[in-house]
Amino acid sequence: MTQQASLAALQERIAAVNDVLNAASVLTWDSRTMMPAGGAETRGHQIATLTRLARDTLLAPETERALEVAERAITDLAEDAAERRIVKQTRHAVDHHKRIPALLIQERAALRTVAQAAWIEARSKSDFSIFSSYLARTVELSRAYADCIGWSEHPYDAMVSIYEPGETAASLKALFSELRSGLLPILDIARSRPEPRSDFLFRDYPEEGQRAFGLKLAEKLGYDFQRGRLDTTVHPFEVSFTRNDVRITTRYNRNYLPASLFGTAHETGHGLYEQGVDPAYTRTTLATDLVGLYAVGGTSFGAHESQSRLWENHIVRSRGFWERHFPELQKHFPDQLGDVSAEEFYRAVTRVEPGFIRVEADELTYDFHIMLRVDIECALMDGSLPVGELPEAWNAVIRRDLDLVVPDDAHGVLQDVHWSTGYIGSFPTYTIGNVMGAQMMDALRMQKPSLDAAIEAGEYSALAEELRSRIWQHGRRFMRDELLERETGRRLDPAPYLAYLRGKYAL
Amino acid sequence: MTQQASLAALQERIAAVNDVLNAASVLTWDSRTMMPAGGAETRGHQIATLTRLARDTLLAPETERALEVAERAITDLAEDAAERRIVKQTRHAVDHHKRIPALLIQERAALRTVAQAAWIEARSKSDFSIFSSYLARTVELSRAYADCIGWSEHPYDAMVSIYEPGETAASLKALFSELRSGLLPILDIARSRPEPRSDFLFRDYPEEGQRAFGLKLAEKLGYDFQRGRLDTTVHPFEVSFTRNDVRITTRYNRNYLPASLFGTAHETGHGLYEQGVDPAYTRTTLATDLVGLYAVGGTSFGAHESQSRLWENHIVRSRGFWERHFPELQKHFPDQLGDVSAEEFYRAVTRVEPGFIRVEADELTYDFHIMLRVDIECALMDGSLPVGELPEAWNAVIRRDLDLVVPDDAHGVLQDVHWSTGYIGSFPTYTIGNVMGAQMMDALRMQKPSLDAAIEAGEYSALAEELRSRIWQHGRRFMRDELLERETGRRLDPAPYLAYLRGKYAL
Repeated sequence: MTQQASLAALQERIAAVNDVLNAASVLTWDSRTMMPAGGAETRGHQIATLTRLARDTLLAPETERALEVAERAITDLAEDAAERRIVKQTRHAVDHHKRIPALLIQERAALRTVAQAAWIEARSKSDFSIFSSYLARTVELSRAYADCIGWSEHPYDAMVSIYEPGETAASLKALFSELRSGLLPILDIARSRPEPRSDFLFRDYPEEGQRAFGLKLAEKLGYDFQRGRLDTTVHPFEVSFTRNDVRITTRYNRNYLPASLFGTAHETGHGLYEQGVDPAYTRTTLATDLVGLYAVGGTSFGAHESQSRLWENHIVRSRGFWERHFPELQKHFPDQLGDVSAEEFYRAVTRVEPGFIRVEADELTYDFHIMLRVDIECALMDGSLPVGELPEAWNAVIRRDLDLVVPDDAHGVLQDVHWSTGYIGSFPTYTIGNVMGAQMMDALRMQKPSLDAAIEAGEYSALAEELRSRIWQHGRRFMRDELLERETGRRLDPAPYLAYLRGKYAL
Repeated sequence: MTQQASLAALQERIAAVNDVLNAASVLTWDSRTMMPAGGAETRGHQIATLTRLARDTLLAPETERALEVAERAITDLAEDAAERRIVKQTRHAVDHHKRIPALLIQERAALRTVAQAAWIEARSKSDFSIFSSYLARTVELSRAYADCIGWSEHPYDAMVSIYEPGETAASLKALFSELRSGLLPILDIARSRPEPRSDFLFRDYPEEGQRAFGLKLAEKLGYDFQRGRLDTTVHPFEVSFTRNDVRITTRYNRNYLPASLFGTAHETGHGLYEQGVDPAYTRTTLATDLVGLYAVGGTSFGAHESQSRLWENHIVRSRGFWERHFPELQKHFPDQLGDVSAEEFYRAVTRVEPGFIRVEADELTYDFHIMLRVDIECALMDGSLPVGELPEAWNAVIRRDLDLVVPDDAHGVLQDVHWSTGYIGSFPTYTIGNVMGAQMMDALRMQKPSLDAAIEAGEYSALAEELRSRIWQHGRRFMRDELLERETGRRLDPAPYLAYLRGKYAL
């Protein structure tokens, strides 16, 4: 077989895996946006079957044979050639899944179902004890899972590798230590400032107006509605079914305008990444997370979050954006915003207000919520924190970092869905997104001095084009730190992020 | 292995096939209702991969092994026991698919793509010659396909067996001969009558009002929106993803009210069938068309159509329905229907008006369109009609039966999508639906004299309950004629249908 033929044979197998995983994503999107309530149970079976078939197809002897031939065919290609990366990543994924016994997958799936139900009940009653035994079992199965994946320094390393390859408990500890000492003085300064006016954010904003502005906003940032759509869900998200069909959702809080405004900007950032992947990578390994069994073009959860945070915080949550666009928002809501200036609006949407809930946190306190969770996940995984002591550990950190007393478990340890779904190890990617977004933005501003003027003028296509050519188009070809080294000359580095926050909140 | 264990092993395999086919249906529904234009190409790949994987799963050695054990385990069960039917139908499907070479499936799929494009162009230019070579190739591949499936009397028998098991070219010829001689005198009488007033049907009916009434109508007929939803598409359809999620669509013609009115009633009828299948059959062979590779609970295309026609024509297109519900319709459209009586409305929606287009045909002329197509399909399959002579043959029959001169191919031989998608053999099921619907309704009226009073009173739950217990709940357990014999004492019989039409249109 020629090199081309062997790669084509492998590609055909991977295309099928990608098709099935994209189908599973369609079913997930539908279940959150369109599905009638009655469909839940059988939909769960359908998604589970698709995920299993994707794994089976990846582990089938035909894939193995095609992969072996392809491995011999790519030895003379450059180390970072797309074909070589395809083969390498496919091999990595095949070896990964071979190490996970089917029984463990079934056990984790079965636990997920009951654990989620228990978490919902526990949260509604604000009683951690209802959930604790399920979490204990989740930790047990996660340790078994980590042992299958393999790790040398810390079991958490194996879990993080699923979401953010390259990061470890140790690397995160170093990153967080630098972040914490940089963030605390900024937070101190910000908290000492007088609170800005924000009453107008809580006025009555009918959904139609919010949606109309949100659609324009997404389009303004470069989102292509010929290959996407915006729907309404309780928990906003972005999901793609190849770059040709990338959907985002938002939620409309009638009495709090920023929820849909910045939520839409955030999901648009995710959507731009997916829509910008090289068309040549469609249905290939470079647009498929074969380890996580998820059809996605972004190279890591953190890299993905970097794009959503960049557009949400660096562009839309900026003084310049509202100086330019606030009059348009006022046109949509003349009664609600008639007595407000652009500067007042900007100050209101950048006010700093430590709180209990991660998803409502401002830019300055958000990372403290993440660091807390990652510390706890590490301690759960290495056994240094018994599950029963979790609420006290949680509340102590919130008091130390944010000077707040957690009133109950629903406002504390029970607030996030993640652990109930078996996800341990994904929290760090939110903070990595913040750090990487600022690092990319900083490098772009240095390398392209004309960019600031374009952004100031409300022309975001120049920025989108830079990000497309530097990040989005590469899909999963380069690892996150490879991308950062190519474009910023450094691996992940919190200095630009801290400088950005200092400039925005403490100068 | 015990009987139970062997059936459970088979059931697990079939459940996966059903899950994948339901997933394909979700993707199809989404592509027609929600998908942005850009998604079409990769969506095609995704659906094709799912269908292939469903077939592969059905033909996998694991399924064969489970099936063989199950076949030995069910020999002491009654012939019509659900378990025995499951095994028998699964065996039939496995043997069917084994006879179709993968190459032929690929050729048909490849042809479908180009043939549909050619048909779209041909129809827009009203030029059959653009499409004829593709149709000729479709007939060739259909003959090869029929030979694989196997037939003894006529190659058309193999094609019909996919959609309406039990019917053959000969049985259809006999049925149509009886129908034709019964229909012609009824049509003669109806055409001799003065044309009723119908101007008000073409007034301006905003979509919101049509949709509001349509939702109430579907609910009134018994459609469960907890397990369904109503959306808008160019071509209305019904599709189910198990009985727990059964969706219908309609279209709103702003200047012709009956389109959405009777379209919604029709799709509701299909939806009721799927929602009414026994929950115990969910994800089993008895809710999966394993031959057609389509997740559906109805036992044949004709049986399905019988339920949609029954609700559309026997219930909603009846004098009693509008005597009772016309005031509600008037409330939705006071300006448009203020000068119209219930009787005038009924007469307008039952006016007889021979035309060129099948999907716009009235109850009396509809079957002539079907008989024309089935005659042509038979003649194409046995080679007695060369493709090149098709337009002339078509136009001659329309002149003979309906006394109309076809102006161009778009209003004649090019009007239907079916042949361009490779579907040959599905047209008879529309007329079978008409016949079976009337036969069931007739038997029910005889066996349940109280039914008419309930229907007259606008209480349709009694009828729905009868149909549920006699037809819907059985899913695919019984063949169409078995159901008819159980419930009416006869196999398919056009007499009640002709009597119904005579009573409605010629008395």
